Amino acid sequence: MNLWLNGSSSPTTQFFFKAESFQKTGSFKFRGALNALTLAHNNSDHRPAVTHSSGNHGQALACAASIYNIPAWIVVPKNASIAKVHAIRAYGGKIVRCENTAQDRANIANKLIQDVNGVLVHPYLDKRIIAGQGTVGLELIQQLQNNLDAVVVPIGGGGLISGIALAVKSANKHVKIIGAEPNMANAAALSLQTGNRVQINGLVNTVADGVRASVGTVAWQVVSRLVDQVITVTEDEIIQATKFVWQRMKLVIEPTAGVGVAAVKTDTFKKLRLKRVAVILCGGNVDIDHLPWT
Amino acid sequence: MNLWLNGSSSPTTQFFFKAESFQKTGSFKFRGALNALTLAHNNSDHRPAVTHSSGNHGQALACAASIYNIPAWIVVPKNASIAKVHAIRAYGGKIVRCENTAQDRANIANKLIQDVNGVLVHPYLDKRIIAGQGTVGLELIQQLQNNLDAVVVPIGGGGLISGIALAVKSANKHVKIIGAEPNMANAAALSLQTGNRVQINGLVNTVADGVRASVGTVAWQVVSRLVDQVITVTEDEIIQATKFVWQRMKLVIEPTAGVGVAAVKTDTFKKLRLKRVAVILCGGNVDIDHLPWT
Repeated sequence: MNLWLNGSSSPTTQFFFKAESFQKTGSFKFRGALNALTLAHNNSDHRPAVTHSSGNHGQALACAASIYNIPAWIVVPKNASIAKVHAIRAYGGKIVRCENTAQDRANIANKLIQDVNGVLVHPYLDKRIIAGQGTVGLELIQQLQNNLDAVVVPIGGGGLISGIALAVKSANKHVKIIGAEPNMANAAALSLQTGNRVQINGLVNTVADGVRASVGTVAWQVVSRLVDQVITVTEDEIIQATKFVWQRMKLVIEPTAGVGVAAVKTDTFKKLRLKRVAVILCGGNVDIDHLPWT
Repeated sequence: MNLWLNGSSSPTTQFFFKAESFQKTGSFKFRGALNALTLAHNNSDHRPAVTHSSGNHGQALACAASIYNIPAWIVVPKNASIAKVHAIRAYGGKIVRCENTAQDRANIANKLIQDVNGVLVHPYLDKRIIAGQGTVGLELIQQLQNNLDAVVVPIGGGGLISGIALAVKSANKHVKIIGAEPNMANAAALSLQTGNRVQINGLVNTVADGVRASVGTVAWQVVSRLVDQVITVTEDEIIQATKFVWQRMKLVIEPTAGVGVAAVKTDTFKKLRLKRVAVILCGGNVDIDHLPWT
């Protein structure tokens, strides 16, 4: 499902918003999950799908697995919100809790894979996932008749932006691919600056919970070659941009989607003087009883 | 702007949601206001537009007036929210405050009309307004290829439902027109039951602030003939339906739009066993810092 809204912040820029919030399970993550499980199905691989995610990938994998009638096991840290756990269950996912550490999460996932004879479907370290997310880029090129100057994409683990970059640059190498990232979790910006993949370890508390991860090894191979620039934004800019979309565009988006909107409101972006710009509203899953700005 | 979302609450009903929240100024009210001022303009009537409204009609009239470069004077009660006053000003409307009584509102509006040589554009006691709102019905018939069993419309003053009823029943008299109304402000339901226009006087505190008014004289001529049924819903049902649309459809709607969604979730509605149903999401103007359910 797509929604095009044309707006203009200046007489010279036209924006197109890709509302992945309308995608099944409320985020672009369904594209990758469905692609991974479809490829497995076509290879007659009917093993249970296993992943670790407290967020949108967990819901997406649970929903995609239900289509192929295979179990989905989602390892969820104890501090994940009840709302997210409920959403995964609502899509038929089986929850296994772990401690709030990367180590325990990996241990539990590995043990689970053995116990249930399952296969890991990682949120972004999986080429099938990246290819699935890339369908956003294919659609952009088609829907905007290949008349596009730039795409602005929130970047965390890098699955979405690398899929989009591959698809869009294959069709038109002149389209700029611009990452958008919180200042508080600026691994991608640092990586592009230094030319080496930087990882931020430890707790990152940005309100944009979908981009807390640092760029993964698989995505970095693409990001390092095809992403032109990363624009970083403050927490306040993220919240103001998210509220702007709710109030003026009447779309429920999550703060992670607000990161891209915040990026195009910066002076850094405006100085690029681009004419036709697609902004990816990557998801709309928020707990509406506990809004990030109240 | 339109958004079609196909859903089904049962295997036998398909719903189409008309997202008037995406309309300019965030509600269907812009349709009527623009029609009224366009007709005036075509008659070379360039007098200032005057109305009283603390809500969506005020914003809509201010925006429509700016198109024709005429002043819009909006009489706003002292207890109106600051957010709404700001919105009217943002569209270029001139605010005149009045006491929180219908008497003072009318007095101030009448005096203003004389002082500025203005003309009243009433929110719903005006056939040009009703005709403008009726374009929702024309679009429904076109967009659903006249294949439609019912339209569900929140009803207050009755401008929207009477415009839609006239348009839709002209094209297809078999389409049911169903009003949706809060229990707390059930003037239309009582009117249809008794066959006489009932007015509820005094303060009505329903969360659905867009339908606090009772059916007006002009709309009643249409409503009494063409509206098949009115379904009433509780305050809790309105809030739950509004939250459902935010959470699952990712659309920001106001509680008044939730009234229609709540109506189609009632047993009364389900027993009608309709196959293709349009639900009008009449607006999306809410104060996102103070949500109705928090």
